[in-house]
Amino acid sequence: MDIHAYMQTLGQRARAASRAVARADTGLKNKALATIAAALRRDEAKLLAANAEDVATARANGLEPAMIDRLTLSTKTIATMAEGVEQVAALPDPVGEISDLKFRPSGIQVGKMRVPLGVIGIIYEARPNVTVDAAALCLKSGNACILRGGSEAIRSNRAIAACVQEGLAAAGLPADAVQVVDTTDRAAVGELITMREYVDVIVPRGGKGLIARLLAESRVPMIQHLDGNCHVYVDDKADPEKALKIVENAKTQRYGTCNTAESLLIARAIAPTLLPRLAAMLQGKGVEIRGCAETAALVPNTVPASDEDYATEFLAPIIAVKVVAGLDEAMDHIARYSSGHTEAIVTEDYTRALTFLREVDSASVMVNASTRFADGFEYGLGAEIGISTDKIHARGPVGLEGLTSQKWVVLGTGQVRA
Amino acid sequence: MDIHAYMQTLGQRARAASRAVARADTGLKNKALATIAAALRRDEAKLLAANAEDVATARANGLEPAMIDRLTLSTKTIATMAEGVEQVAALPDPVGEISDLKFRPSGIQVGKMRVPLGVIGIIYEARPNVTVDAAALCLKSGNACILRGGSEAIRSNRAIAACVQEGLAAAGLPADAVQVVDTTDRAAVGELITMREYVDVIVPRGGKGLIARLLAESRVPMIQHLDGNCHVYVDDKADPEKALKIVENAKTQRYGTCNTAESLLIARAIAPTLLPRLAAMLQGKGVEIRGCAETAALVPNTVPASDEDYATEFLAPIIAVKVVAGLDEAMDHIARYSSGHTEAIVTEDYTRALTFLREVDSASVMVNASTRFADGFEYGLGAEIGISTDKIHARGPVGLEGLTSQKWVVLGTGQVRA
Repeated sequence: MDIHAYMQTLGQRARAASRAVARADTGLKNKALATIAAALRRDEAKLLAANAEDVATARANGLEPAMIDRLTLSTKTIATMAEGVEQVAALPDPVGEISDLKFRPSGIQVGKMRVPLGVIGIIYEARPNVTVDAAALCLKSGNACILRGGSEAIRSNRAIAACVQEGLAAAGLPADAVQVVDTTDRAAVGELITMREYVDVIVPRGGKGLIARLLAESRVPMIQHLDGNCHVYVDDKADPEKALKIVENAKTQRYGTCNTAESLLIARAIAPTLLPRLAAMLQGKGVEIRGCAETAALVPNTVPASDEDYATEFLAPIIAVKVVAGLDEAMDHIARYSSGHTEAIVTEDYTRALTFLREVDSASVMVNASTRFADGFEYGLGAEIGISTDKIHARGPVGLEGLTSQKWVVLGTGQVRA
Repeated sequence: MDIHAYMQTLGQRARAASRAVARADTGLKNKALATIAAALRRDEAKLLAANAEDVATARANGLEPAMIDRLTLSTKTIATMAEGVEQVAALPDPVGEISDLKFRPSGIQVGKMRVPLGVIGIIYEARPNVTVDAAALCLKSGNACILRGGSEAIRSNRAIAACVQEGLAAAGLPADAVQVVDTTDRAAVGELITMREYVDVIVPRGGKGLIARLLAESRVPMIQHLDGNCHVYVDDKADPEKALKIVENAKTQRYGTCNTAESLLIARAIAPTLLPRLAAMLQGKGVEIRGCAETAALVPNTVPASDEDYATEFLAPIIAVKVVAGLDEAMDHIARYSSGHTEAIVTEDYTRALTFLREVDSASVMVNASTRFADGFEYGLGAEIGISTDKIHARGPVGLEGLTSQKWVVLGTGQVRA
């Protein structure tokens, strides 16, 4: 198989299909989505059979258990996938929305119209549910897409693609609006991320290693997500009970998510009374404390923290702790070590809250709330295709709106420029 | 000189300075801008002397007259530069604006805050006025910047930089907030466009060749502007008088600007009566008509149009003309040949106007108005740093808002995720 030629063909087809998807009205797109959801439910047995083959091969190839977990479909996960598609159908259509339409002194009216990006390339691991989510979000936002999931899921993805195709056909939308890359050759990824002519944006969903590699090689703009090294700063004006609740939730509700807190900063003035309580709560849940010398003096069983610990996304029951002089040192520390994902301050001080909100340069900045809220559903986006730690285009949770752009529209009655 | 080390130092300093610029309040930024404007006026003689040396060297090196023109300063251009800085000072400050702050079912309030991008690298030709414009726009939008102008303007840029430094000092802002690359070594550009760690976005201002090269080599996101191959489509439901006025203005008001029309599409049903009038008007102003066979049958002295003519930004008194069946063929032609800058339809038909607005995928889409309106001042942005033909982040004229991004802000009172 000539991968270059194959991917070029996919690209050309996606570009051609993108115009039809872009002009499809809300009713048609929702009809396609409803049909996809129904097909997924109806084809449950087929999906499970295809998936079982994928899982068997993956096991035989010694894929690690966590990856097998994410690859495996069940009656429940298929139902969740179908519901997810219906939820996307229920979201407001962002396409065509006109805002800020104002008259100018020349007599023209100028505004902005929200429009699809065009063709979106999505690169992800062997997680069949992402195939469904991504297809639904791209379709609703009026984009054509090329989906490249991990090769271990190829049979599952083919079965899902058949359901998606049924939906597109039912709505009279072009089959090429959603294309699943049907090769396990890794060269396909290299092609996808360099086809500037056919792909408008790449959304990678996967581990840090994958994204760092794509970033180095991509010639297409990327909505990227690197680490989630999130901080909670407990100010000396914090309400101790709120601090306990927020640190507990931010660190221990789930260890493996990108919005989990990895570092705790605490003001020197409150550390002697509050840090031992915070640490006891965390240690009581099995969390290892890696701290500075001041932390060690206040907390038994503190492991000395290295500089690297402060820069690490542990994704595990470990937290880096540092006693700081106050807000300024906390913000300096965050500026130095944060990955720009999510940071929270716990304080009752009005000015410090506003300063933190204004000056901390991360995708989500919070006052008196758990970092775990940094999520498309919690923010009201309805669904998310990823969380961007980049500053350009989309920042933080990316929903339908992040898959669109705005063009200028000018309404005139014959005006010309003077 | 070790260019790599030099540029790394500039990058580190810009990054460090960017935090102070980001948190500077509106009053401070305006004070810096007012001081810069006053210094430019006061230093007129110095600026003219430095510029005269640049111009003499450029002439001796045989720089082409159009470039010498853009390099040359005068009492008038210096006054215009100072006024431009004052206009930027008068614009509303985009930084810190919070929008869409809404309560969520969890009890948190979620909204978006407009924030600077961080460090902006601007690469441009030997045009000293761009040094001033770019510094003013970056400063007002809370960004640090690294400015790399054409080497022929280096003495002028140094003199301007001294005025900018005076403004920064007067407002207590760090000197590194605006850095002018002080080397004529072209390797500096290669360094600037690959310093991902220190530069958040590159804005290239210059010819197509420059931008294409940067695009191929840049590792930093770019707000890019390629061709302006703009179309006017005259529908068979057009008001002929509006069509004449708009085509005249769009093509002939200025030949060398990116929002000038380069192609005229006209519906077959109206071509026999209207195209001869349009062509006579254009030819009367010395515009060469390059047309399809149907055009040639209606218009004397038509030069046969090649496929390449339809794809060309002439920037000259030449227009490519094509007779089309109607709206659909016009939109197909635009989708194939347009550079995505600006397209206009002339029609009195409601549905066709809406269809054109919705379906044409360009940065600016207009009904019954001249393409020449695609401009930051005409759109009310106050000033522009460029016009983006890209779809990601910023599209069309880019003003202060295009130099910012939005982060999420969460206001809680102790909420944690369930």
